[in-house]
Amino acid sequence: MSVDKTLPDGTSGCADPVLGLFSSPLKVLNLGLDSFADELSAQGVEVLRVRWKPPAGGNAKLIGALDRITRGGFDVETANREAVSRILKGKPVLVDVGKALDVVPGMTKRTVLHAGPPITWERMCGPMRGAVIGGLLYEGLAKTRAEAEGLAASGGVDFSPCHHHASVGPMAGVMTASMPVWIFENETYGNRSYCTFNEGLGKVLRYGAFSDEVLERLRWIEKELAPLMKRALALHGPLDMRNIIAQALQMGDEGHNRNRAGTSLIIREFAPYLVRLGEDGEKVAKALSFMHANDHFFLNLSMPASKCVVDAAAGVEGSTLIVTMARNGTDFGIRISGLGDRWFTGPAGIVEGLYLPGFSAADAAPDIGDSVITETAGIGGFAMAAAPAIVKFVGGSPEDALAWTRRMYEITVAESEFYRIPILDFRGTPTGIDLRKVVETGILPVINTGIAHREPGIGMVGAGLVKPPVNCFEDALFAFAQTYGEGEKA
Amino acid sequence: MSVDKTLPDGTSGCADPVLGLFSSPLKVLNLGLDSFADELSAQGVEVLRVRWKPPAGGNAKLIGALDRITRGGFDVETANREAVSRILKGKPVLVDVGKALDVVPGMTKRTVLHAGPPITWERMCGPMRGAVIGGLLYEGLAKTRAEAEGLAASGGVDFSPCHHHASVGPMAGVMTASMPVWIFENETYGNRSYCTFNEGLGKVLRYGAFSDEVLERLRWIEKELAPLMKRALALHGPLDMRNIIAQALQMGDEGHNRNRAGTSLIIREFAPYLVRLGEDGEKVAKALSFMHANDHFFLNLSMPASKCVVDAAAGVEGSTLIVTMARNGTDFGIRISGLGDRWFTGPAGIVEGLYLPGFSAADAAPDIGDSVITETAGIGGFAMAAAPAIVKFVGGSPEDALAWTRRMYEITVAESEFYRIPILDFRGTPTGIDLRKVVETGILPVINTGIAHREPGIGMVGAGLVKPPVNCFEDALFAFAQTYGEGEKA
Repeated sequence: MSVDKTLPDGTSGCADPVLGLFSSPLKVLNLGLDSFADELSAQGVEVLRVRWKPPAGGNAKLIGALDRITRGGFDVETANREAVSRILKGKPVLVDVGKALDVVPGMTKRTVLHAGPPITWERMCGPMRGAVIGGLLYEGLAKTRAEAEGLAASGGVDFSPCHHHASVGPMAGVMTASMPVWIFENETYGNRSYCTFNEGLGKVLRYGAFSDEVLERLRWIEKELAPLMKRALALHGPLDMRNIIAQALQMGDEGHNRNRAGTSLIIREFAPYLVRLGEDGEKVAKALSFMHANDHFFLNLSMPASKCVVDAAAGVEGSTLIVTMARNGTDFGIRISGLGDRWFTGPAGIVEGLYLPGFSAADAAPDIGDSVITETAGIGGFAMAAAPAIVKFVGGSPEDALAWTRRMYEITVAESEFYRIPILDFRGTPTGIDLRKVVETGILPVINTGIAHREPGIGMVGAGLVKPPVNCFEDALFAFAQTYGEGEKA
Repeated sequence: MSVDKTLPDGTSGCADPVLGLFSSPLKVLNLGLDSFADELSAQGVEVLRVRWKPPAGGNAKLIGALDRITRGGFDVETANREAVSRILKGKPVLVDVGKALDVVPGMTKRTVLHAGPPITWERMCGPMRGAVIGGLLYEGLAKTRAEAEGLAASGGVDFSPCHHHASVGPMAGVMTASMPVWIFENETYGNRSYCTFNEGLGKVLRYGAFSDEVLERLRWIEKELAPLMKRALALHGPLDMRNIIAQALQMGDEGHNRNRAGTSLIIREFAPYLVRLGEDGEKVAKALSFMHANDHFFLNLSMPASKCVVDAAAGVEGSTLIVTMARNGTDFGIRISGLGDRWFTGPAGIVEGLYLPGFSAADAAPDIGDSVITETAGIGGFAMAAAPAIVKFVGGSPEDALAWTRRMYEITVAESEFYRIPILDFRGTPTGIDLRKVVETGILPVINTGIAHREPGIGMVGAGLVKPPVNCFEDALFAFAQTYGEGEKA
C-alpha cells in the first residue's frame, strides 16, 4: 500500500521519512520496560506505554519449545477448539447413588483410592496417611492404627489415584470399597464419574481424621443417608447439575469453597422427595439437618459434575488443554489432553489464606485434593468473581475475587455458555486452560482450597489460595513439543 | 492566617493578589454548569470541574422550607440519629403463625386491609378491586363477583390500610379475617408486625385474580400450609430473620424482587422440623414443593421483618426520616417519623421494566403494594448491588444495580451493620431515608417491583423499577416546615 504524500494545497509533505523523524515532534510507543519511557517522558516526549513481557519470562528453552509446537505439523488451535467444545457441551447429570465396589471401575476390596497423582505410602503426607488409616479401619481391614499403618506400608493394599477410576475426592480423597458414591453421567458423551459423600467440617476423614466419631459418621452415611438419597433421587429422577451450578453461580457460590447456595438448592430439590419415602421422620430429619449444617455438602456434587465433563475432553490428539489438575499433599500433578495418561508433577505448595483460631501456617499440610477439578472445568477459583463473599473464607478483598477471574481469561480458550457471572455482565466463566498460555504468560491457574493440618487425625485448619508449581507446566510443554513439535519425531 | 510571600532566594513574590491574578496562569474551579468550563478550556485554561446543582432544583419555595427547618428550634440531625438508630438496632424475629382475626390489631370479620395509603372502593384500581372481590368470596361475605362488588360499593365492609394495623401486604395487599399471617416481633423494641403467606406467581389474589383456583389455594394455605408452618416454627423456636436476610444479601438476593436465596434458606431451616411433625408425608411434601416452586415465598417474610423494624422509628419528634412508603395502585404515599400518622400522597407511577411474553406497558396497572417497606428499611432496591442477577427480572445492567445502591447513600443517613454488600467491599446497605435529602438532591428512592395487569383477575405481567411522585416528598417537606420550622408556629 502506498501513502499519498501530496498535501491538500498541492505542496509535498516531508518526502524523506528519516529527515521527517528529526524535524517533527516524536511520538513514542514503548513496549515493556518502563525505564526507556521514563527517560523520554522526562524530556517532554509523548510516550504511549504498552505493557509487555517477553513470552515465558524470556526463557529460551521454553520459547524454543513453544516455537517447535507452532511449527509442528499439528493444528493445536483446532485440537483445542475440539477439546474445549467437549467441555462446553458437557451436561453433568446426577443419576444414582451406589457402592464404590459395585460401580467404580477397577475398585476392589483392597483398593484405596486417593487424591492427586500416584503416590506410595512412604511419600504420603500426614492427612493422607490419616485418611488411609481411617479407610482401612472403616473397611475392617485393620483393627488399630498400628495395624492399618503396617498393612499400608507392607503393600497389602493397592493405592491408586481417584482420577484413574473416573473419580475425584476432596482433600485426601480416600475412597474404599464400601463407601457410597454419587454417580454422575455426562449426558452429552455418556461417560460417568464418581465421588464420595461430603462428611461436613471439623474432624473428618478427608482432612485425615480417623477417630471413632469419624468412622461412625461414615457408617451412618453408608447405612442411612446414602440409601435415603438414592431412593429420593430415584423418585425425583436424574438431576441436571449443570443447571444447579449455573444457579449457584448467580447466588454467590463459585462451586469449590463457597457452596452455600448449591447446598441450599440441593436441599430444596430433594426435601419433598425425601419426605415422600415414607421413612421414619427422625431419620429423614437427621439427613436434612446434616445437609443443612454443612455448606460443603455440595462440593462432592460440583466435583464429580466437573470431572465427567472434563474427562470427555481428554485424549484429543494435538491438544494442549489441561484436563487434570490434582494434588496428593506431596505432589501437584497435571495431565494434558494430547498427552494421554502421563502425569507431570511438582512439589505441592503451601496455601496462603486465613487460619481458624488457634492455628497458623506452621500447622498446614501442603496443598491436597482433587477439588481443583472445579477450576479445571472453569468454576471454583476461576469463577471467584461470582462469589465475592468468599474472601471472608479464603482471604483477600472482593476486588481480588474479580481480578482473579479476569486474569484467568488470559490462560483459557473459551467462555462457558451456562456458567455466567452476573457482576461481569453475565460473562461466561473462563474455561479450558491452555498449557501454552500458562507457560507463555507465566500466569498460573488460581486455586482456592481448604487447608489440612499436617498431622493425621486433626482436620481442617483454614482456607486460602495456592499456586501450583511452575515446573509441571514447563515439563508438560517440553513433553508436548517432543511429541508434536517440529523436528522432534522421525 | 498570613501567607509568607518571601521566596527562598530572599526576593518578594507578587505582593498584590489582584495583580498576581493577571500575571500568573489561571487555575479555575468551576461549579455546576459546564458551559463556563468549556469556554475556559477552549482558551487553554486549566479547569477543575465540580459537579454541583442548586438544592431542590433551585425551587425557591422548597429552599425556603429547608431553610426554615434549619433555623427552627428542633435539632433534626439528632432526631434523625435517634430514629435511624432504632432501625439499625431493630431485630426482626419470626415468632408465630396466627389467624388475622385473632392477632392483627383492629381486625374484624368485615375488615378488608389493603396496600398503600387509605382509599375508597370507587378510587381503587383494577387489581385491587379484584383482590377485594377475592377476599370477600374467600370469607363467604359474597357468593359472586357481582355480590362482592355490590357489598364493597355499599360501604358494607371496612377498608383500611395494612399499615394502620402493623401489617404489610405485597401488591394489592388484601388481608381478611380468616387469613393466616406470619407474626414477627422486633426483639429490640417489642413491637409486632403481620403479613399473609405468599401464594406464588401467576393467577394469585395479590395481583387481583379471584378465580376458584386462587381461592382454593388460599384455603389450602389456611387449612394445611399455615398450620404445618406454625407447628414447625414452634418446634424450631423463633427464627432470627435479620440473620437470614443478611445471609441472603450475600447470596444474590436484595429482599424485594429477588428472593431465591431467602426462600432456599427458609426451606433448609424448616425442612427438618416439618418432617419431625409426624404428619402425612404427602401433605408435608406438598408444603415443601410449594415453597420450592415459588422463589417469592420469602417476600412475605422480608416485608414484615422490615415493617416491625421501621415501625420502631416512627413518632420521633423532629425527625425527617421516611418511615412509610406504600402504594395502593392509585396513590403513592409516605409518612414521616416526626409527622405522626399523616400521609402525603401523589399519583402512583407506571413501572418501567420487563414484561412477560404477550404483555406490554399498555396492560400495566400503576405501581401497587406495600413491598416498598423493604426499601424503607434499607434493602430491596437500596440493596440492588447485592443482587446483580436481578436485572434479568427488572431490566437494566449489573452496573445499573451497583449505581442504584451507590446513589441511595446520598439520601440516607446511615449504613446497616448487619446487611452488607460483598461487592461494595461489604459496605452496609443505605438505611434511613431523610426527606430533606430527597428534596435537596432531587434523588428519589429507587423501588423495584412487580407489575400487575390493570384488569382484575389476570395477574402479574412483568417487573421493573418505578419512580415515586415528587409532590408527596415536597408536600411532606412543607408540612414539616410548618410544624417544626422557624416562624411557623406561635
